[in-house]
Amino acid sequence: MPKRIGILTSGGDCAGLNAVLRAVTLRAIQGYGWEVYGISHGTQGLLRRPIDYQKLDLKSFEGSILRLGGTILGTTNKGNPIAYPMEDGTLKDRSAEFAEGCQMLGLEAMIGVGGDGSLHILRKLMEKSKIPFVAIPKTIDNDLGITERSIGFTTAVDVATEALDRLQPTAASHDRVMILEVMGRDAGHIALAAGIAGGADIIIIPEIPYKLQNIAHKIDDLLKKQRNFALVVVAEAVKTENGSALQIFDLNGRARYGGIGHYLSDEITRLTGAETRFTVLGHLQRGGQPDASDRLLASAFGVRAVDLVAEGKFDRMVAWQNRTIIDVPILDAISLNSTVDPNDALVQTARGLGICLGDAPYA
Amino acid sequence: MPKRIGILTSGGDCAGLNAVLRAVTLRAIQGYGWEVYGISHGTQGLLRRPIDYQKLDLKSFEGSILRLGGTILGTTNKGNPIAYPMEDGTLKDRSAEFAEGCQMLGLEAMIGVGGDGSLHILRKLMEKSKIPFVAIPKTIDNDLGITERSIGFTTAVDVATEALDRLQPTAASHDRVMILEVMGRDAGHIALAAGIAGGADIIIIPEIPYKLQNIAHKIDDLLKKQRNFALVVVAEAVKTENGSALQIFDLNGRARYGGIGHYLSDEITRLTGAETRFTVLGHLQRGGQPDASDRLLASAFGVRAVDLVAEGKFDRMVAWQNRTIIDVPILDAISLNSTVDPNDALVQTARGLGICLGDAPYA
Amino acid sequence: MPKRIGILTSGGDCAGLNAVLRAVTLRAIQGYGWEVYGISHGTQGLLRRPIDYQKLDLKSFEGSILRLGGTILGTTNKGNPIAYPMEDGTLKDRSAEFAEGCQMLGLEAMIGVGGDGSLHILRKLMEKSKIPFVAIPKTIDNDLGITERSIGFTTAVDVATEALDRLQPTAASHDRVMILEVMGRDAGHIALAAGIAGGADIIIIPEIPYKLQNIAHKIDDLLKKQRNFALVVVAEAVKTENGSALQIFDLNGRARYGGIGHYLSDEITRLTGAETRFTVLGHLQRGGQPDASDRLLASAFGVRAVDLVAEGKFDRMVAWQNRTIIDVPILDAISLNSTVDPNDALVQTARGLGICLGDAPYA
Amino acid sequence: MPKRIGILTSGGDCAGLNAVLRAVTLRAIQGYGWEVYGISHGTQGLLRRPIDYQKLDLKSFEGSILRLGGTILGTTNKGNPIAYPMEDGTLKDRSAEFAEGCQMLGLEAMIGVGGDGSLHILRKLMEKSKIPFVAIPKTIDNDLGITERSIGFTTAVDVATEALDRLQPTAASHDRVMILEVMGRDAGHIALAAGIAGGADIIIIPEIPYKLQNIAHKIDDLLKKQRNFALVVVAEAVKTENGSALQIFDLNGRARYGGIGHYLSDEITRLTGAETRFTVLGHLQRGGQPDASDRLLASAFGVRAVDLVAEGKFDRMVAWQNRTIIDVPILDAISLNSTVDPNDALVQTARGLGICLGDAPYA
Repeated sequence: MPKRIGILTSGGDCAGLNAVLRAVTLRAIQGYGWEVYGISHGTQGLLRRPIDYQKLDLKSFEGSILRLGGTILGTTNKGNPIAYPMEDGTLKDRSAEFAEGCQMLGLEAMIGVGGDGSLHILRKLMEKSKIPFVAIPKTIDNDLGITERSIGFTTAVDVATEALDRLQPTAASHDRVMILEVMGRDAGHIALAAGIAGGADIIIIPEIPYKLQNIAHKIDDLLKKQRNFALVVVAEAVKTENGSALQIFDLNGRARYGGIGHYLSDEITRLTGAETRFTVLGHLQRGGQPDASDRLLASAFGVRAVDLVAEGKFDRMVAWQNRTIIDVPILDAISLNSTVDPNDALVQTARGLGICLGDAPYA
Repeated sequence: MPKRIGILTSGGDCAGLNAVLRAVTLRAIQGYGWEVYGISHGTQGLLRRPIDYQKLDLKSFEGSILRLGGTILGTTNKGNPIAYPMEDGTLKDRSAEFAEGCQMLGLEAMIGVGGDGSLHILRKLMEKSKIPFVAIPKTIDNDLGITERSIGFTTAVDVATEALDRLQPTAASHDRVMILEVMGRDAGHIALAAGIAGGADIIIIPEIPYKLQNIAHKIDDLLKKQRNFALVVVAEAVKTENGSALQIFDLNGRARYGGIGHYLSDEITRLTGAETRFTVLGHLQRGGQPDASDRLLASAFGVRAVDLVAEGKFDRMVAWQNRTIIDVPILDAISLNSTVDPNDALVQTARGLGICLGDAPYA
Repeated sequence: MPKRIGILTSGGDCAGLNAVLRAVTLRAIQGYGWEVYGISHGTQGLLRRPIDYQKLDLKSFEGSILRLGGTILGTTNKGNPIAYPMEDGTLKDRSAEFAEGCQMLGLEAMIGVGGDGSLHILRKLMEKSKIPFVAIPKTIDNDLGITERSIGFTTAVDVATEALDRLQPTAASHDRVMILEVMGRDAGHIALAAGIAGGADIIIIPEIPYKLQNIAHKIDDLLKKQRNFALVVVAEAVKTENGSALQIFDLNGRARYGGIGHYLSDEITRLTGAETRFTVLGHLQRGGQPDASDRLLASAFGVRAVDLVAEGKFDRMVAWQNRTIIDVPILDAISLNSTVDPNDALVQTARGLGICLGDAPYA
Repeated sequence: MPKRIGILTSGGDCAGLNAVLRAVTLRAIQGYGWEVYGISHGTQGLLRRPIDYQKLDLKSFEGSILRLGGTILGTTNKGNPIAYPMEDGTLKDRSAEFAEGCQMLGLEAMIGVGGDGSLHILRKLMEKSKIPFVAIPKTIDNDLGITERSIGFTTAVDVATEALDRLQPTAASHDRVMILEVMGRDAGHIALAAGIAGGADIIIIPEIPYKLQNIAHKIDDLLKKQRNFALVVVAEAVKTENGSALQIFDLNGRARYGGIGHYLSDEITRLTGAETRFTVLGHLQRGGQPDASDRLLASAFGVRAVDLVAEGKFDRMVAWQNRTIIDVPILDAISLNSTVDPNDALVQTARGLGICLGDAPYA
């Protein structure tokens, strides 16, 4: 068994990361007497000299850190050490520096928290560094295979649902069609779940192709039934009707969130004459206080990941299935991208409620 | 296929019932063109003359009803029609009146929302009434077998977790041991989940026998580690150390919530000298706005229950398992009381975090 | 004393309007035995034939309507009856139709809820209609003179503060500068209050001219102090540094919210190299559940407005000052636009906390 | 001007104390370059040897401390140093030790945050210690004179209002009378404000004598109007109808919250036959996250208190009046106990809404 483990959070932040850090630390120290080194800013802390890290102990997690959004270690979705973007524009393999960092800290195992992209990189890095590795899944998009839920998803759904709760009364007061654009780079899980929970009339996700005419039809139909407003939820990854990507780039060439909400807003006005407003929820979905479900999942994952290290079961990811925690090969998990299955129970639920998914008129 | 179905909510209310009523109504009307009659006050509406009911239509569920706690139909956990408590103190079988009520309304199928007790009664009543029946599980205690979750549970956990979030800072400010008594008549699911999510140090549930000495030991240990406060969560059904029930009865002989929280508060002071305060969460756990998870579950169950009626699959209960909706014989579900299994993943999580469950000192 | 009064909500909706309608109805019926006619969609209900209204009674306000955002009557900020935009592009004075509508309903007094623009129009309309009028102030911008607070303001501040609470952890996790654009057409009250309450480092409001260089200086200074993130709040009405308006127009020529948040985001990146993200809060500030303060204010205003009608004190607006309700001539109130006074207590508080208001470097 | 100031929080904790500590520290360091010493556990830190304190700097308040309930310094409402309860049961004047503690730390001024009792003691202590003193008012009861609001009040009202929001749907679902007992040792401000904001039918406060018969009459009247439930709010300080105190004492002789809620619950059942349930909100009202209003007030008070020290204006308390911060002699403030005036605007509002205050039947 190791005496000292590292932990890092990687990729975009989400609610529940601090609860993971707490669970890992409490279990490692109280259960096994290990030392826990938290690496700062994802993989970056191990590339810096001096190495950027903080020793985590029981004191670190007193008080309210369990309930705080974000990650006290910091994270990043830039700077892959295997293909690191240098100032001169070239990409450099810095994995040896990374391995050296692990060596210098005396890490005997690593626990990494990330989504599919991050875990893919981390797995390779740890292999090159010859440090045994256990993975914990986090992604607000919930697009990681095998596990029913990843950390951060239910809180993101809560925030998006709450936004619909706030948009509904103002939509009804002003006879408006309100469009809410939520996160979801490739998968429509947030849009689908929040749309059902928040009472949306129309939900547009990347997995189900839509026709503007179907959306317009649904809105016309609602108005015919004396309903004076409509709620639309759309995932940011949705493209225009003819398949163009819709994104606003800023002066640095960085992609901004947004685009599809504005597009739908304009197109709905054009086709139906309805007054529309759109809201882009953006980063409000990430930093919030984790809900009870995310804190539970994070705690369960953190404890189990440490136990896997103790049991010498490496290259595995913890996952939630059927009310319990299992562990699976990381490769299996990250090779399965879990987008919304059109036959999914919640898709059936949405159709059953009469929600328009854009692929049919529902009149 | 029926042309007119009834729906009723029975037993203690919880968050998400209106979302069920909405889903059933939307599906039955939009999907099949049926009429939906909502029975008032659980089974009572069918015993009254004139029958107490309201016709539910699409208009009934516009606006914000999806997000409202409670049930617009009303409910009751008194007055079982098969053994109805009469004014003279006797019990009377009024199931014929109930059947007559169904007849008078012209109901061709019934959907009932309830916990194990209610569903047991409802099933018998519907059998006697010769009305095909489909059940939807709800109980904040989450003690119904087969289904991973019943409606109302996650919201009750949210409320209890939020209470711990509020008690922690005042506990820490005043060097106090705070005891939170949560609902849970036979099962400790709420206490266990909220305790982990809310950062409790000690969780006492009916499924795991405790010793006061272990609790005192844990508190002493925390104080030794320079922690100046502790959070304790206890389920209302927990008895005294020697197994006595602890309940305060009011002048009408009705049992009040409370008792065990006060008891633990006094015993902890006696054994440790710590300053304690207790809070009985009570009905705050029932009436709140349903969270997104409960609204999703309620929507999925409501739609599927109507589909079961359409498919002629009766005497079945909808259930949630492994990310999808299944249906099972009602008898199977209600004969399996799902209390906390001491080997459950969350129990392991609690132990892994160093939470004292009362059965061992954890020093 | 009148036997029948009308009530309408006008202009943009906000949290607390239903609480006003409830208070007016309860007071008018229980206190005086009057009838209350709620006019639909602001002034529009009285221009339509048949007149669009609903009779309000005690039953209308049972349950949860007190806590619902928006207005059950509907409202609009379009279609001033004195200069009504006709389909042919001309403006028409339809005040005679409006007066006729009042006549047809038999209204003997009117209570109108609105901001300065709406109250200005309403006052003229009621004068032309010869219906005595009492006004209740509402505006999330809180820019109405004399009254310390108007309905909707504190809830809007809550929502914006909560947004900052959510952006802070993700900003800190990713070393980012987060910019939040909040409502405030002419006044910076929401930005100022939410910025202080939410821990912003920089607050930019239309009342205080700013230099980009001062903002950049503040951010550089924070980074020098080892702070890795910054929070910026900006009111939507703020212009570019050289005074240009910044607004995105959609294909219908309607102005969208947004613009200044994106602008600041780009400029901060340009000047400091910091990674920035912006969020436009938009309509989330309007429709939310009113907080306790807004419900109290709305209830107090509603009761008092009815009493003013009973006392025959017309052409007056209720207002909140120094813990009590007063009433003042409407003209006095709407002629005083209450923007943020640079010597205001909260401006001093912001400066005292070291918050950069853009007019000085604060290094 | 001083070079080093002390700050302490005293008496029961409430939401907003950390926001005060942050504002004082930011202003003192950034504005004047002073050192800030936070005394631990109210006055107790200065009685302990070594002295129990922490130096507060800018780093102490990064992240989320502004939004945390409680006080990071700790507080106490026991152990008045002027009449300190010794183990042998006697009271001892330990003010010389307190003064010595101030001396040892080199404090040149003290800022104290407390309610009327705490400020009374603190003022005397500081006088004896010859340390200039400035006071900041905090009390969830809002019973401090002169200032419109003290820190902690609006958050306590929010929590109590939210409790009513949760009790209403379950009351309506089960045909119950729900009684909520809220804090308020001598003053009914929380009960009155939350009762109005939360839609209570009956509000009982210590300032207005009540008759059970009036309460029963109101409930009967509601039932006659086909309302099937009622909401009652009562302040903990309310006595029985004939003036007896109602408190449950535990085995240590400590008074517990509760008593009057249970009493009213039983009496209402006795008089009306209604099914009742009561909830004692207790400490949930203290530790919550401060709302935006409390954070604003705390920030404004903290900054101004430091400025008073800088200006050499001592023995004064900051206060909020008419949208601005003033300062007044501490003695003036604490000699004015601000209970609910029966002619207060909110009392009129409550009566205007038809809420029964217990002193008249309202039928």
